[in-house]
Amino acid sequence: MTTGKKAPYKIYLEENEIPKQWYNVRADMKNKPAPLLNPATLQPMTVEDLSPVFCKELAEQELNNDDAYITIPDEIYNFYKMYRPSPLVHAEFLEKALDTPAHIYYKFEGNNTSGSHKLNSAIAQAYYAKKQGLKGVTTETGAGQWGTALSMACSFFDLDCKVYMVKVSYEQKPFRREVMRTYGASVTPSPSDTTEIGRKILQEHPGTTGSLGCAISEAVEVAVGTEGYRYVLGSVLNQVLLHQSIIGLETKAALDKIGVKPDIIIGCAGGGSNLGGLISPFVGEKLRGEADYDIIAVEPASCPSLTRGKFVYDFCDTGMVTPIAKMYTLGHDFIPSANHAGGLRYHGMSPVLSQLYADGYMRAISVEQTSVFEAAELFARTEGTLPAPESSHAIRAAIDEALKCKETGEEKTIVFGLTGTGYFDMVAYEKYNNKEMTDYVPTDEDLAKGFASIPDFDLP
Amino acid sequence: MTTGKKAPYKIYLEENEIPKQWYNVRADMKNKPAPLLNPATLQPMTVEDLSPVFCKELAEQELNNDDAYITIPDEIYNFYKMYRPSPLVHAEFLEKALDTPAHIYYKFEGNNTSGSHKLNSAIAQAYYAKKQGLKGVTTETGAGQWGTALSMACSFFDLDCKVYMVKVSYEQKPFRREVMRTYGASVTPSPSDTTEIGRKILQEHPGTTGSLGCAISEAVEVAVGTEGYRYVLGSVLNQVLLHQSIIGLETKAALDKIGVKPDIIIGCAGGGSNLGGLISPFVGEKLRGEADYDIIAVEPASCPSLTRGKFVYDFCDTGMVTPIAKMYTLGHDFIPSANHAGGLRYHGMSPVLSQLYADGYMRAISVEQTSVFEAAELFARTEGTLPAPESSHAIRAAIDEALKCKETGEEKTIVFGLTGTGYFDMVAYEKYNNKEMTDYVPTDEDLAKGFASIPDFDLP
Repeated sequence: MTTGKKAPYKIYLEENEIPKQWYNVRADMKNKPAPLLNPATLQPMTVEDLSPVFCKELAEQELNNDDAYITIPDEIYNFYKMYRPSPLVHAEFLEKALDTPAHIYYKFEGNNTSGSHKLNSAIAQAYYAKKQGLKGVTTETGAGQWGTALSMACSFFDLDCKVYMVKVSYEQKPFRREVMRTYGASVTPSPSDTTEIGRKILQEHPGTTGSLGCAISEAVEVAVGTEGYRYVLGSVLNQVLLHQSIIGLETKAALDKIGVKPDIIIGCAGGGSNLGGLISPFVGEKLRGEADYDIIAVEPASCPSLTRGKFVYDFCDTGMVTPIAKMYTLGHDFIPSANHAGGLRYHGMSPVLSQLYADGYMRAISVEQTSVFEAAELFARTEGTLPAPESSHAIRAAIDEALKCKETGEEKTIVFGLTGTGYFDMVAYEKYNNKEMTDYVPTDEDLAKGFASIPDFDLP
Repeated sequence: MTTGKKAPYKIYLEENEIPKQWYNVRADMKNKPAPLLNPATLQPMTVEDLSPVFCKELAEQELNNDDAYITIPDEIYNFYKMYRPSPLVHAEFLEKALDTPAHIYYKFEGNNTSGSHKLNSAIAQAYYAKKQGLKGVTTETGAGQWGTALSMACSFFDLDCKVYMVKVSYEQKPFRREVMRTYGASVTPSPSDTTEIGRKILQEHPGTTGSLGCAISEAVEVAVGTEGYRYVLGSVLNQVLLHQSIIGLETKAALDKIGVKPDIIIGCAGGGSNLGGLISPFVGEKLRGEADYDIIAVEPASCPSLTRGKFVYDFCDTGMVTPIAKMYTLGHDFIPSANHAGGLRYHGMSPVLSQLYADGYMRAISVEQTSVFEAAELFARTEGTLPAPESSHAIRAAIDEALKCKETGEEKTIVFGLTGTGYFDMVAYEKYNNKEMTDYVPTDEDLAKGFASIPDFDLP
C-alpha cells in the first residue's frame, strides 16, 4: 500500500537522522527467546558465566530481554557516520523490467569496504572490547564479510584481530584474506593446528575444508585461552540483532518520510543478523498489535534451518565448546553440500528469529541457487549493483512476490534487504556465467545425519 | 581556507542538486586544446571524419570548444540518480591520524559496481550510441574499471558491448572479466587474433602481455569494420572530460553548501578523465580570473607523461589507427615496467589537461608505488574505504600536503578525488602486504625508446 507523493530514486536520511538508539525487539516479545544454557549444568548462562568469552557489556546486552531501547555510544555513532545512513532505494528499473504493479524498495547495506551490513555490529563489538581495555578479539569468518568488517573495526580502534577463516574460503577467496590483512588482521585457515580443537578435527577429518561451526570452536578456544582477548561473533547472537536493528530503524524512518507502509518485508537468513535487524521495528509493531506485515525469511534450499530444521537446544559450534541455544537447527555437524556458493551456511538460526518464527510472526521459504543467481543477474543489469549471493536470496523472493502481483494486479509494496555486494564472489558468478552452476536439495537422509549430532539434553 | 560552521562528516547533495548540465572547460580556455589531426593529411578532423569511429553527437561534443554548458539528457540524468550525487567526505579521521591543521576533503566516486568514476562517461556514451540506433560499441580496458562501467551502461540501454582487455589484466583479474560478463559484455584478451592489428602485434611481439594502446587499436578496428558499431573510450578525449565535469560541479556545490573554499585540489592522472572532471569548474574560475587554486596532477613515477613527457603530436594508440593528438606523451610505444600495479599506464594525457599544464594552470608531480600503497593502507585504516591504487596516488599527495601544513602550521583546505575502490586490486595489495612490492623509475634511456616511436610530423 503506497500513499503520498512520488519518491525520489534513493531515499537518504540526513546524517542527524541516523537512529540514536538500537531497538531491542526482545523487550516486546511475550515469548522471550529461550536462554543460553550451560551444557554441563543445563542452567541459564549469567553475565559472569559469559564474561570469559564475551566482553562484559556485550554479555549484558546478550541477556537483556527488558530494555526496548539502548543508546548507541558516541564513538560507535561517529563511526556509523562514515557509511550511514545507508540508502533505501526505489527499484524503479527492476519494477519496469518485471512489468509489475508492485512497488519494490531495497535497503542497501553494501556501500562500505566490508561490502555488507556486518560492519554495524563489528564496530559495536570492537568498541566495547576497547572500552574494557582488552588487547584484541578473535572470530571466525566464512564468506569473509564478517571478518572484513571486524578487521576494519579493530583497525579503527587499534585492537588486535585474529580471524579463523573456513579453509575452503581462505583458499578460494585470497582477496578477502588480503583485505583483512590490509586492515592489520591475522588470518588463519580453519581447521588449523594452532588450537586443540583444530588439531582434533584435522585428525578425525583429514582433508576437511572446514565449516563455520569448526572455525567458531577455534576462535572461542583462543579467546578463552589468551590473556586480554575475547571472542566476537557476527550473527546468531541476541546482541548482534540488537546492533543490526539500525537497518530496520533507518528503513522505517525513510519509509515514513515518504509516507509508504510496506506490505511485505523480505530478508535473507543465514544466522539471522540481517533479517533480524531489518525486521526489528516492524515485527515490534506486529508484536504490539499496532500493524501487520508479511515478513519472509529466505534461506538456501541447501541449508534449510528454518524450513526443515528442528526447534531444539543445540550447540552453536562443531566442537561443542559454546553454550547451547534453543534454535532451529540442522545439527551442529551439518555442512552444506560442496556445490553451495556464498554464505548462509550456518547450521542454526538466531534464537530470537527462531522464537518469532515458531510463534508465527514470520514465514520462511527456501530457494535454489541457480534461481538465486538468475535473480542476481537481472538485478545487476537493471539496478546496476552486483549483489552478494546471500542478498540475492532476498532478491529472488522479492521478484517472485512482484510477479505474483503482476498476476493478481495487486499494488503491494515490497521491501527487501540488499545486504551487500558480490565483488568477492566472482568465482560463483563465473560458474553461473559458464552455466556450470548446480543445485542440490539435501534429502531427508542427508538431514538425518546432521540431526543425529544434536545431543539429547535432559531438559526439565 | 575554511569558513562557516562545522561540516557533517559526509556532505550529500539532494537528488535534485545533481547538476543538470555538464561544464565544458574548453569554452573558457584562451589557448584551446590543439585539434585532433588526420595523420595522413595533417588537417583537423571534422565531425564527418570522426563519425565512422564515434557516434555523431559525441563527435560534435569532441570538437565543441565554444559551449560552456551542455544539458544532460533526461535518460542519462535518470541513470546518474542510481548512484549520484556522490558524497564529499570530510576526512576527519585521516586528519587526526596525521595530526595536521589542514582540512582534508575527498570526493568519493567508488559507490557503484564499476567501482569508479568511469560510469559518468560510460552512461553518456552508451546513451548517444543507443539514440543513434547503433547495435553496439567496442572499447578497450586496462585495469578493468572502464570496461565494467561500459558493460553496466550497455546492459542498461540493451546495447552489445565488446571489450578488448589488456592481456595481463585479463589473466590477473579474472573477477573483473566476470563482472563484465555478468552484465552481458563479451571480453577478449588483447592482443588477439580477432583483428588484423592484433595478429600483426602478436607476430611482431610473441608473448606480449599487451598494452592499452594496443587494445585501443583492436577496438577501433572492430568498430570501424562492423556495421552498426562505434568505438568508445573512457579517458583522454575532450568528450570524456566534459561528462566527468559532473564530479567537479558536485564537489563545488557541496563545498559551497558548507562555505568552504579549497586551497589545493588534487587528482590522480592517467589519461586525465578524473582529474579533468574534478578540476573543471575550479580551473574555469582560474581561467576567468575569478579565483585561484593550487591544482596538482599526480602520476606514477613509472608512467610520467606530464612530468617527463614531450608536449607534441602523437598517436593515441600503438597501432597508429587513431587520429593524432597534441598532448604530453611518452611515445605511443611506451609500456610501463612490469612491476607497475594498477591503472594510470597510458602513454599520453588528455589534450585539454596538457594545454592547461603547458599554460601553467596546474602543476604535476610523480610518486612511487610503494609510497602510494603506504598511503592507501593508512587511508583504509583511518577512513574505512579500501582505495583503488589509482586513487591512492592522490591520497599520497594529499597526505604530503597535509604534512607540510603540519610543519608550517597552515590550515590549508585540501580536496582530492577518491576515484574508486581497490576491491579488484588485491593482487597488488597482497604484494604490498607481503613486502614484495618494488618501485621502478624509468631511466632517461628507457624513456628515449618510447620517444623514438613519436613520428616527426611535418606540421606547419
